[in-house]
Amino acid sequence: MFRTMVIAGVGLIGGSLALAARERGLVERVVGYGRNETTLRRGKRIGILDRYFLHARDFPEDTDFLVLATPVSAIAPLTRSFLPRLDRNCLISDVGSVKGRVVADMDRLLKAGPPFVGAHPIAGSDQWGPDAARADLFVRRRCIITPTAKSAPAAVKKLRTFWRRVGAKVETMDAGVHDRVLGVVSHLPHVAASALVNALERTKVGSLDLAEYCGSGFRDTTRIAAGRPELWRDICLLNREAVLKGLREYARGIERFAEYVRRNDGPGLEREFERALATRKRIT
Amino acid sequence: MFRTMVIAGVGLIGGSLALAARERGLVERVVGYGRNETTLRRGKRIGILDRYFLHARDFPEDTDFLVLATPVSAIAPLTRSFLPRLDRNCLISDVGSVKGRVVADMDRLLKAGPPFVGAHPIAGSDQWGPDAARADLFVRRRCIITPTAKSAPAAVKKLRTFWRRVGAKVETMDAGVHDRVLGVVSHLPHVAASALVNALERTKVGSLDLAEYCGSGFRDTTRIAAGRPELWRDICLLNREAVLKGLREYARGIERFAEYVRRNDGPGLEREFERALATRKRIT
Repeated sequence: MFRTMVIAGVGLIGGSLALAARERGLVERVVGYGRNETTLRRGKRIGILDRYFLHARDFPEDTDFLVLATPVSAIAPLTRSFLPRLDRNCLISDVGSVKGRVVADMDRLLKAGPPFVGAHPIAGSDQWGPDAARADLFVRRRCIITPTAKSAPAAVKKLRTFWRRVGAKVETMDAGVHDRVLGVVSHLPHVAASALVNALERTKVGSLDLAEYCGSGFRDTTRIAAGRPELWRDICLLNREAVLKGLREYARGIERFAEYVRRNDGPGLEREFERALATRKRIT
Repeated sequence: MFRTMVIAGVGLIGGSLALAARERGLVERVVGYGRNETTLRRGKRIGILDRYFLHARDFPEDTDFLVLATPVSAIAPLTRSFLPRLDRNCLISDVGSVKGRVVADMDRLLKAGPPFVGAHPIAGSDQWGPDAARADLFVRRRCIITPTAKSAPAAVKKLRTFWRRVGAKVETMDAGVHDRVLGVVSHLPHVAASALVNALERTKVGSLDLAEYCGSGFRDTTRIAAGRPELWRDICLLNREAVLKGLREYARGIERFAEYVRRNDGPGLEREFERALATRKRIT
């Protein structure tokens, strides 16, 4: 499908995508870009990359597929730095968790230039870095493609085919709708888990170290709070409206529970737990 | 150590305790009690119980160790129903997640009667029922013993030895302190996870079924929301004060995050996430 694929950001997602594309014969070579040479060297050594570059001026001119797998706030600025050397037919895409701002910025930046189509594979792990990459990370996972009015139909079709071939269930969605969905299913839980850890840390019970009393329940509930802070800061700010809406709904729900406890309302409390149980059972 | 151990409530915890006690030779026989005969029959078939009974009038008179592994609200009423047939030297204990109310009720109920010492093993699983029971469930897990002024030192010592022998790290704590600790490390996360699931269910994005878009992050964060509603209703009401305090601190933390997002305060937001990451790393 492609001759030269450039992956900017060789972490869990970027690295897995490179491995998957190579394994399925979708690319002839994969070239990595990043700020951290140690990561890129590691990516080359473990077979993710054929080679890598560290400066925009070394962007390979024969690139026909550029994937931005960096933190979301770096997507547009990085593309701008590659622009002078970008072939006008090079397909550009990303894997960012926020799409509205990203696709708007990219459409504005690229105008009549190379085709851009946004994408977001819903796949993850609590591990990061190239060593966590796996060729099968996207198998049977959803990948949401968010074309805009500006997106060339041929580019959309090609990107869909690429993701289908690495095993994903591809779905097209408006970028704004994507952000509202992800605001609830991904960004809200991240804030909720982080706030839970901070509540533990801010609570004093004598001189006990509460961290020592956490069981598997607390650990599972807060596992995602170990994500990279700068990455989640960006996601929250770039998806501001949906995140705030999610936090408002969530705060109302917390207050609903508190009110039942305050009023000693057993049936009301049980109904809220029942409701959560019924919905949770549907999430597999 | 004991001749006849009665386990009231043959679920994950009660069943595991029976298996552990048998395997380590701490009891001669284990007799089960419960409301659901199917569960008890199953417990007998898979080697957890030697036999079982369904009516308080059939409580075995030679019982020298009674463990109440029922939902917390049933502990005192059930003990009351066994009382006429309880030997005055029978050691009584429980495994409930709330201790303040339980030990106060039991002390009042038993007065100069058989010795009671409360206990709470911090061990769990997302599975329930006798089939989930495992003899090694308590190995290297914390078990908190909550004696009161009324507790006989010999009974406390015997219970500590029993728990140590099934592999637990035994710790003594005031019942009120226990409840404040568990309110934060266990009861609060349960409400937080349930409220998160309900926020998902109450959010509408077009006609999309948001449950279909949940990745591993949402799943992990809400795993404990699949607990038994009537059990968690009781825990929240019996540990009302600590749960309300935890919810207040948590709501403040959620509002802190929301305020940073609202003000577009990147550094503030990153600091909150950093803080959570640092604490989360200490919880293993």
